[in-house]
Amino acid sequence: MKIALMNEFSQASKNAAVLQELQAVGAEQDHRIFNVGMSDDEDHRLTYIHLGIMAAILLNTKAVDFVISGCGTGQGALMSLNAHPGVTCGYCIDPADAFLFAQINNGNALALPFAKGYGWGAELNIRYIFEKAFSGTKGQGYPPERKASQVENAGILNQVKQAMGKDFLQGLKALDPQLVKTAVGGERFQACLLEHGQQGEIKDYIASIIAA
Amino acid sequence: MKIALMNEFSQASKNAAVLQELQAVGAEQDHRIFNVGMSDDEDHRLTYIHLGIMAAILLNTKAVDFVISGCGTGQGALMSLNAHPGVTCGYCIDPADAFLFAQINNGNALALPFAKGYGWGAELNIRYIFEKAFSGTKGQGYPPERKASQVENAGILNQVKQAMGKDFLQGLKALDPQLVKTAVGGERFQACLLEHGQQGEIKDYIASIIAA
Amino acid sequence: MKIALMNEFSQASKNAAVLQELQAVGAEQDHRIFNVGMSDDEDHRLTYIHLGIMAAILLNTKAVDFVISGCGTGQGALMSLNAHPGVTCGYCIDPADAFLFAQINNGNALALPFAKGYGWGAELNIRYIFEKAFSGTKGQGYPPERKASQVENAGILNQVKQAMGKDFLQGLKALDPQLVKTAVGGERFQACLLEHGQQGEIKDYIASIIAA
Amino acid sequence: MKIALMNEFSQASKNAAVLQELQAVGAEQDHRIFNVGMSDDEDHRLTYIHLGIMAAILLNTKAVDFVISGCGTGQGALMSLNAHPGVTCGYCIDPADAFLFAQINNGNALALPFAKGYGWGAELNIRYIFEKAFSGTKGQGYPPERKASQVENAGILNQVKQAMGKDFLQGLKALDPQLVKTAVGGERFQACLLEHGQQGEIKDYIASIIAA
Repeated sequence: MKIALMNEFSQASKNAAVLQELQAVGAEQDHRIFNVGMSDDEDHRLTYIHLGIMAAILLNTKAVDFVISGCGTGQGALMSLNAHPGVTCGYCIDPADAFLFAQINNGNALALPFAKGYGWGAELNIRYIFEKAFSGTKGQGYPPERKASQVENAGILNQVKQAMGKDFLQGLKALDPQLVKTAVGGERFQACLLEHGQQGEIKDYIASIIAA
Repeated sequence: MKIALMNEFSQASKNAAVLQELQAVGAEQDHRIFNVGMSDDEDHRLTYIHLGIMAAILLNTKAVDFVISGCGTGQGALMSLNAHPGVTCGYCIDPADAFLFAQINNGNALALPFAKGYGWGAELNIRYIFEKAFSGTKGQGYPPERKASQVENAGILNQVKQAMGKDFLQGLKALDPQLVKTAVGGERFQACLLEHGQQGEIKDYIASIIAA
Repeated sequence: MKIALMNEFSQASKNAAVLQELQAVGAEQDHRIFNVGMSDDEDHRLTYIHLGIMAAILLNTKAVDFVISGCGTGQGALMSLNAHPGVTCGYCIDPADAFLFAQINNGNALALPFAKGYGWGAELNIRYIFEKAFSGTKGQGYPPERKASQVENAGILNQVKQAMGKDFLQGLKALDPQLVKTAVGGERFQACLLEHGQQGEIKDYIASIIAA
Repeated sequence: MKIALMNEFSQASKNAAVLQELQAVGAEQDHRIFNVGMSDDEDHRLTYIHLGIMAAILLNTKAVDFVISGCGTGQGALMSLNAHPGVTCGYCIDPADAFLFAQINNGNALALPFAKGYGWGAELNIRYIFEKAFSGTKGQGYPPERKASQVENAGILNQVKQAMGKDFLQGLKALDPQLVKTAVGGERFQACLLEHGQQGEIKDYIASIIAA
């Protein structure tokens, strides 16, 4: 899998530690990691609002398969990512959450708390979460005998999001242009999208913003 | 405040215990409680998909001020509620989460896990969560010196949801009609909406479905 | 109740924040708080080993009724306190733990993690733990129908500790004298013991060490 | 390592699920598992008091290297095990706890909550705890630069326990004989001790009780 990590300004200083754990697990499990948000307090400034836009662009263009996001409590990132079509973002505080989300909801993003509860052992917990988030076959249900209804509901959730939302490109164009411009302003984000994103209207639109 | 509790089928058997704690806290803090989802395994069958539609209807018509929802892990309810305009739903596993969500995100719904981690002491934890979720002045920021940026971001999140989403009534009409019919099929839900919901197009539309 | 708070060197910097929450809850519930360990990094140096000796002296002389201790993970303090007769120390990471320990085990001490999991919201969680640790009637069992067997086992645990251990004074005299001297070396600890400890051999022995 | 699992009466029904996870991790990491407590509700009845005696006998005779115990909240087992010399028992609710306890405290027993917080995903959490409890080199400190002081304090804790306690055999003889008789009454416990325990006074004494 291609996995993007994205940190916003309030916990940008945690990026190095989180990235290290994600890369370690990625190396063990043969995933490729893209660090597309803030790498430290001095980096291109992003809020959890931008993380949602970034995640949606990368997932809808298939530039990446999964997004790890977060903020102080993780709740802002969680709601921001879920505001977009094509993003199914869970919330995770322990490794069992990661496994259950993969089996029951089979989503493509997680929001983590990078300040709440983040003390000694936080980097261990995060590593263990990553170990369970990306391994094994997803969508097998939990407990397994509930698989059919869980898979069905995950599908219906996508239909509901489609019914309630606009087409993604149309939505992007309805956003405050400055928000989008800032969201796509980071070099590592741009490299990830431009190299790995599928050709199409979304990528063309973002490329035009980047070029502007 | 008027607070709705809504349980889906997989954890319907927990409704009585959760309702008891919510009512106890509601009585202490002078909130009115509406039990609008499944009250036990035999009740009108709802999934987390329906909970999202129900929450959105009650919140967008101001029939209630806050929604407590959940499912096995809470993640399905969480994503389902957040799929709708006018719903800002956090995830909560301990009382500090409830307080932080109220101060930082100032949302109007919570999703709780009613099976994951739900063993001895679960009803205590849920009561303590309710104690902290509804008391005090919300939106004061945490830590307090970050209030301005947190309030700003909460406002921008609403704008993003508006940009990405359709108008709620338009979205409702784009949903599979059977989903909406089931979502609004419970007697206690109908009573809550019809007695307390604001007059207007949304209420009229749902009333027409109920009457059909 | 009279409640002692004791911090060791590795997390001494947390003392002020923890004390503030304990005093707030103490004021609401009419408990008297004694801050007998390290108040900051520069204070008389104590390890979790000393906390155990201090807790045992204060509890066995009835200088205080309850002890709040901790260290980085809380585990060192936990085992150190439980090494002494007359100390029944539980481990607590959330408010429900505090309530259950009071109802089931009816102990007289808690060990808390002051670094593990200690991030945003930690002081909230600690306050909520204190709110539930000291209120209400203890020893009522949980669930209540198990009260009889739980009270019986708590009594047997005390007998086991007595069988396995020496008399406390005899044990104190078997300890490395430097450990005891350091443990009782703090001014606030001495004031608490000398003012509130029951007259008797233990107090006389410690007073003689303090005077030496 | 040789690892003993011991369940008491209140959560005996969890034994099969916990044993399955422990055996799975044991098989991966090449540990040998001994299920020496209650295997179900009908088995030889044990309380957390007995678990402490059993753990102390198996660890002090080196019949096993590590003990996994627990009860409803885990607190009773925790205090009961720690009442004995030669037992250093931590409390564990997540995998990071297990790792930190191994690195900082380097103990030989864990107490787990088998009812509190035990809902969906509990068996996953327990497996992940086992994965981290028994792998890698213990006693390396956390963070690593604190290793020296952590190793020193772990050593001093053992000295304190020795000073405060009687010799183990002397303590055993001071216990209510019926407690010991019940503690050693299970067949699987006896087999573990008699086959794997070191020859010596403790084993002889327990063998004489078993034979009586």
